[in-house]
Amino acid sequence: MQEMPAHKAYRLLEAGPIVLVTTHDGERPNVMTMGFHMVVQHAPPLIGCVIGPWDHSYEALTATGECVIAIPTVDLAKKVVDIGNCSGRSVDKFAQFGLTALPARDVAAPLIGECLANIECRVEDTSLVERYHLFILRAVRIWTDPDRKERRRLHHNGDGTFTVDGRTIDLRERMVLWKQFQD
Amino acid sequence: MQEMPAHKAYRLLEAGPIVLVTTHDGERPNVMTMGFHMVVQHAPPLIGCVIGPWDHSYEALTATGECVIAIPTVDLAKKVVDIGNCSGRSVDKFAQFGLTALPARDVAAPLIGECLANIECRVEDTSLVERYHLFILRAVRIWTDPDRKERRRLHHNGDGTFTVDGRTIDLRERMVLWKQFQD
Repeated sequence: MQEMPAHKAYRLLEAGPIVLVTTHDGERPNVMTMGFHMVVQHAPPLIGCVIGPWDHSYEALTATGECVIAIPTVDLAKKVVDIGNCSGRSVDKFAQFGLTALPARDVAAPLIGECLANIECRVEDTSLVERYHLFILRAVRIWTDPDRKERRRLHHNGDGTFTVDGRTIDLRERMVLWKQFQD
Repeated sequence: MQEMPAHKAYRLLEAGPIVLVTTHDGERPNVMTMGFHMVVQHAPPLIGCVIGPWDHSYEALTATGECVIAIPTVDLAKKVVDIGNCSGRSVDKFAQFGLTALPARDVAAPLIGECLANIECRVEDTSLVERYHLFILRAVRIWTDPDRKERRRLHHNGDGTFTVDGRTIDLRERMVLWKQFQD
């Protein structure tokens, strides 16, 4: 895995891919599937996401204040759904789904070796957790796999169907007001 | 335009399309491009989004508490970028970009006739506006254009490049824990 600057988390998340979230409760790692997330600001890099008490990960996230957001690609589609349809309360999901837990640098939650990118995050603000289970996270480090051939992300349509990344349109030359985000 | 239930806003937004947001300040309508948004909860249907004082729409949104989130498709790609690169302070964007402002039912902000879907929204919670310019909106009505041929949405990669919707994978039969969201 190769590091990229943490302030570029928006490059990975703004397009709305379905993601995996890892936590570590001190005993073992866990992983969940998440579709309710957004970029909140560029710098410092903040991410909003919804993780509730119905998710086993909620307990480890609130206890440790740490997680990793990992971005899977189309080859992992079935695992992404199956990870979201069982609970870390009863299943060791890393073992069950054959995922490789790699050590992160700044958080106890692991990176996922099979993913395109991994974002190490710390909880920044919990003021909307009680009302909406909405966490504000700060991206602290990002790791990517530049050698990976398969790079097409998945976008959840909310009903169990997923749209796969198609072609890319380059309209950078029209972004006159926002040129600073193209470096 | 055909109505669909407001609680299905997550079907349109969870996949992370770039969207347009309309407002009406009492004098004229305006429109901006937005990439920082998320689904917050299914029911009632809440949406988080970042709109700041640097956006001319911020003033009308805070004054009226109303907006429409419209979902453009790939045929509008250049307009989506150009709308985000000029300001309603100096430009009548509906006229400039040849957009059709259709009346909404419950809010003063207009629907955009050229878009795949339009979500009428009211501001629900402003408690994170001061700190992060993060609004919580409630979807109140949704209108779609079922006859539209072009349905491929755009996903902004944060740098002026956009990924176009590719093929769809149907994994609904694996969503055993979340079957209630498939109706």
